Amino acid sequence: MSDRNTEKGAATMAKSEFVIKPGSNEISVTRVFDGPSDLVFKAMTDPELIPKWWGPRKYWTKVDKMEAKSGGSWRFINGDDAGNEHGFHGVYHLVDAAGPVIIQTFEWEGLPGHVALETMRLEDLGGGKTRMVQESVFQTVEDRDGAANSGMQDGAAETHDRLAEVVAGLLKAKRNR
Amino acid sequence: MSDRNTEKGAATMAKSEFVIKPGSNEISVTRVFDGPSDLVFKAMTDPELIPKWWGPRKYWTKVDKMEAKSGGSWRFINGDDAGNEHGFHGVYHLVDAAGPVIIQTFEWEGLPGHVALETMRLEDLGGGKTRMVQESVFQTVEDRDGAANSGMQDGAAETHDRLAEVVAGLLKAKRNR
Repeated sequence: MSDRNTEKGAATMAKSEFVIKPGSNEISVTRVFDGPSDLVFKAMTDPELIPKWWGPRKYWTKVDKMEAKSGGSWRFINGDDAGNEHGFHGVYHLVDAAGPVIIQTFEWEGLPGHVALETMRLEDLGGGKTRMVQESVFQTVEDRDGAANSGMQDGAAETHDRLAEVVAGLLKAKRNR
Repeated sequence: MSDRNTEKGAATMAKSEFVIKPGSNEISVTRVFDGPSDLVFKAMTDPELIPKWWGPRKYWTKVDKMEAKSGGSWRFINGDDAGNEHGFHGVYHLVDAAGPVIIQTFEWEGLPGHVALETMRLEDLGGGKTRMVQESVFQTVEDRDGAANSGMQDGAAETHDRLAEVVAGLLKAKRNR
């Protein structure tokens, strides 16, 4: 396993770039969005928008709980028409629009007690573009490897494609105001 | 930096054993307490007891906030008579007496945005003894190294000595009931 780029979605030129170093607890992913950071932050913190982008396209997403503020909790469900459902939950350590930064815990309920700490920072690049850097640290290297080998990159890249589409929609709505 | 044992406090034979591997994000510490796991868990989750053991002896400890349940938040302050104060806070991802296990975030407010994920498990060893294993993962190896070089081990070992004293007090009270 080494550094790897993943590109999904013909509709966008952007790529989600992963860094997965051997023997580390970390996964880092960087993505550039066409839109200012406040719109990307809004897409990430508005419970109404989560079902439009969170998770792979093959699943619907339901927001069971989302208190997008420091000290709040979240729980999302991914499901398909065959009746498969996957729950995910965590707590927000920090949600700061001024960063913008979100620091939260993440647990897939299929593997209870295995938790990652996720730090997501947004940076305005100028020209209306925003760089997102999301760094996840797992409790063990084994947990990190398990996540990296679960097809997570493809799922995350697709999630970022969908997030880019939501941001494009917010940007269009903003320009038409 | 390598594996290291730290012993503080002549009053106890127990040791806090640290594992700090070079190049890792993790710090692991193990300590055996004389008392059953339910009493150790009580000492860790009762806001009334925190000031009796949390932090080095040279500081007083004030509980600003402690919702010791999954999804709750905590904030403690360490201070001294010279007016120095240090705030610490985080969120509880999981507090489960049945584990017993606590998974929480940890931030020293002197270094905002630098957060650790802490997993604390208790295991009854029989003979009225409990093993505590606390594993902290930091966002970066640099943050881990910074914590490891801050005198954290001595502070943690002293904190564990104090926790052992609180557990001894709870055990005595239980036997006298």
